[in-house]
Amino acid sequence: MEKSIKEIISLTKRKGFVYPSSLIYGGFSSSYDFGPRGVLLKKNLKEEWWNEMTRNRDDVFGLDASIIMNPKTWEASGHLSKGFADKLSECKKCHKRFKDLENDQKCPECKGELTPPREFNLMMKTFIGPVEDDAAVTYLRAETCQGIFVNFKNVMNSMRADLPFGIAQIGKSFRNEITPGNFIFRMREFEQMEMQWFCKKEDADNFFEFWLDKRLKWYEGLGIDMKKLRKVEVGEEERAHYAKRQVDIEYLFPFGWGEIEGIHNRGDWDLKTHSDHSGEDFSIEGEFPWVIETSVGVERSLLAFLVDSYTRLDDGRDESSDRKETVLKIDRRLAPTKVAVFPLLKNKKELVDKAKEVFSEIKKEFDAVYDETGSIGKRYRRQDEVGTPFCITIDFDTIEDNTVTVRERDTMNQMRVEIENLGKKIKEFMNNGDFVS
Amino acid sequence: MEKSIKEIISLTKRKGFVYPSSLIYGGFSSSYDFGPRGVLLKKNLKEEWWNEMTRNRDDVFGLDASIIMNPKTWEASGHLSKGFADKLSECKKCHKRFKDLENDQKCPECKGELTPPREFNLMMKTFIGPVEDDAAVTYLRAETCQGIFVNFKNVMNSMRADLPFGIAQIGKSFRNEITPGNFIFRMREFEQMEMQWFCKKEDADNFFEFWLDKRLKWYEGLGIDMKKLRKVEVGEEERAHYAKRQVDIEYLFPFGWGEIEGIHNRGDWDLKTHSDHSGEDFSIEGEFPWVIETSVGVERSLLAFLVDSYTRLDDGRDESSDRKETVLKIDRRLAPTKVAVFPLLKNKKELVDKAKEVFSEIKKEFDAVYDETGSIGKRYRRQDEVGTPFCITIDFDTIEDNTVTVRERDTMNQMRVEIENLGKKIKEFMNNGDFVS
Repeated sequence: MEKSIKEIISLTKRKGFVYPSSLIYGGFSSSYDFGPRGVLLKKNLKEEWWNEMTRNRDDVFGLDASIIMNPKTWEASGHLSKGFADKLSECKKCHKRFKDLENDQKCPECKGELTPPREFNLMMKTFIGPVEDDAAVTYLRAETCQGIFVNFKNVMNSMRADLPFGIAQIGKSFRNEITPGNFIFRMREFEQMEMQWFCKKEDADNFFEFWLDKRLKWYEGLGIDMKKLRKVEVGEEERAHYAKRQVDIEYLFPFGWGEIEGIHNRGDWDLKTHSDHSGEDFSIEGEFPWVIETSVGVERSLLAFLVDSYTRLDDGRDESSDRKETVLKIDRRLAPTKVAVFPLLKNKKELVDKAKEVFSEIKKEFDAVYDETGSIGKRYRRQDEVGTPFCITIDFDTIEDNTVTVRERDTMNQMRVEIENLGKKIKEFMNNGDFVS
Repeated sequence: MEKSIKEIISLTKRKGFVYPSSLIYGGFSSSYDFGPRGVLLKKNLKEEWWNEMTRNRDDVFGLDASIIMNPKTWEASGHLSKGFADKLSECKKCHKRFKDLENDQKCPECKGELTPPREFNLMMKTFIGPVEDDAAVTYLRAETCQGIFVNFKNVMNSMRADLPFGIAQIGKSFRNEITPGNFIFRMREFEQMEMQWFCKKEDADNFFEFWLDKRLKWYEGLGIDMKKLRKVEVGEEERAHYAKRQVDIEYLFPFGWGEIEGIHNRGDWDLKTHSDHSGEDFSIEGEFPWVIETSVGVERSLLAFLVDSYTRLDDGRDESSDRKETVLKIDRRLAPTKVAVFPLLKNKKELVDKAKEVFSEIKKEFDAVYDETGSIGKRYRRQDEVGTPFCITIDFDTIEDNTVTVRERDTMNQMRVEIENLGKKIKEFMNNGDFVS
């Protein structure tokens, strides 16, 4: 069953997951906005990561550093020099820059002479303060981790932490990519979930294995098809000069394998470099801690979960009905909405009243929607398409015996549940993954 | 009892709430980073707002639009012209710009002649794409609401919404303020929680009252001292030209009254203007919806809650002990950590083992910390200082009868609770606000 990225883009736009940014003005530069369902999916994904990486542990602390930092940070990290740049040619006459031009070509705009291709910095610059000149130049961060490194001692002292410990952060980064694309896979503005683990040199190799394993299990636990996930050991020539080891976690997208997370052994490079540049001593008992980093692209992993769960029911499983529709078989914890509540008929006041009563109770505990439009079958399909795991129908029996029908998305199984146990039962279903009474 | 902002800044830095950004490089331009406890406080604050504004309702939808939008958005909104600018004088010789200079003064840098003061745009610009020229200029958003307006029809269609309905968003905005300051009160990079409510013109006045009342009650519900909160009706001459009414919600900070939220009746200006500029018709049945906006500054309201809950126990209440310390009497829902777990003594293995067992269970449900260092009194004070509402002590009785001591922050009351009911009891305490068995 082939999954078309076009179908997924269309679904996500129509159903309020992802809209092209500034669409009424013709869109903008591979930018995207997350709609009502996309916000919830992204929120759930980030929460799952946060729980795994910090809340369920006692040795990883959170941080939320600012996007605009002192530019000395980027001098120290090397982002303002080489290693974070694309090769561009510049026209000697009009000073515009172009990618992929040979030395002997002329400027496509003014036919001026071009410089040899040279590194063009991918950091996006801006200006701070009332005077717009060189002194006021600063940059949008290109990675969240530098905010973690410069705060290493702050966190250690505030939390009275000892090695080994980690610092975790979720936040936006910006890279002036020359060729963004593939929907939300490569954007200039994107979000990262990064964790830097500080440990002794001699423990670094073991912790690398520990975190790599843990991160793979996280995807597996959230139901991703492990046949479409692979580890790629990145060779020395492709790694950053300071990186001792790098394993990329890649997912098989419709447009090919793409990196969704990287596990890096950064050695002692970061803390040492910032110590050298700042004069602040980040060493502990004479040695600089080593750093194992786990770095997830939020939108990339979100796209992987979307693609992975996107299912077209043209497999004949349900030929008798007209259900040849889309089901987003996404993990229940990630699903934007957990529960939909329907009255069987919208023109029966007692059903509608009861349904609204059930809805107003259930949404205190779960992200929920109410829907009374169209046949029950249509309403099921509407929820299947956006991945809602449970649909609750209030029918005439409900009025008699205070039970409702709960129907599960993937199995289409149905079960009667007493209204007074509804919250508890849905919670059980959410946690267990199963759907048994 | 005077609350010194200096004391609060010192506490928040020491305890990992807020660090000056890039501090090892001398800090940067009124930028701040949120440390481990600050992240949790901010997360909790945003979650409370999100629950109130979207999750507990069925007529407000979430959005997460990108920070970098098509610059046509900002032409339409008027941000690139007047109304969002400070008056600056520019030196005709060196072209640097300065605030608050009189016409007859000379340039402080080169003694050149100055222009009359003129509007200086507060939007922060950056460049997109490989060619850094005028065509590539774009801006960091100066307010989140424009992302909502341009997506008005997208959300309406995806969610099959009818008037009245709202769109809510939490996200970063950037303003090149000439004079940032007062700690995290006025920063160039800051976060907003905004909700735009779309309704018919004839309902706008009533909805304004509804949302103003609801927003005030939100602060009250989270325990803020209502004597330090005031509504300010903003006069016509101070309002934006399109604003029909504006009420600011101000808090009495140690540095004076400061706006933490604004309620605005924006009329039909936004949807009409974007329709005019984009050619996309945002009218419904021939009329443009009116917009009631509630706009919170995240860091400002966070600072208000911090200041409001910061308590120095020098009131003689507890003169017998050495407890003349700081207590952060913050609402339990906002507190970064809900529970601290202590073994009475750290050199008794059975106490430590049991405490770690209790800790590993309780942190599945609540943000929790474990502490075994120093006397119990010291450990209480350490938690009081960061606002942890409940401390659990494992003592020798625990080994006998499987009960623990739960001690509440503000009353210092203590209660024995069975370990098997601990999660349930803490949950009850969290929800009820009371501390009774």
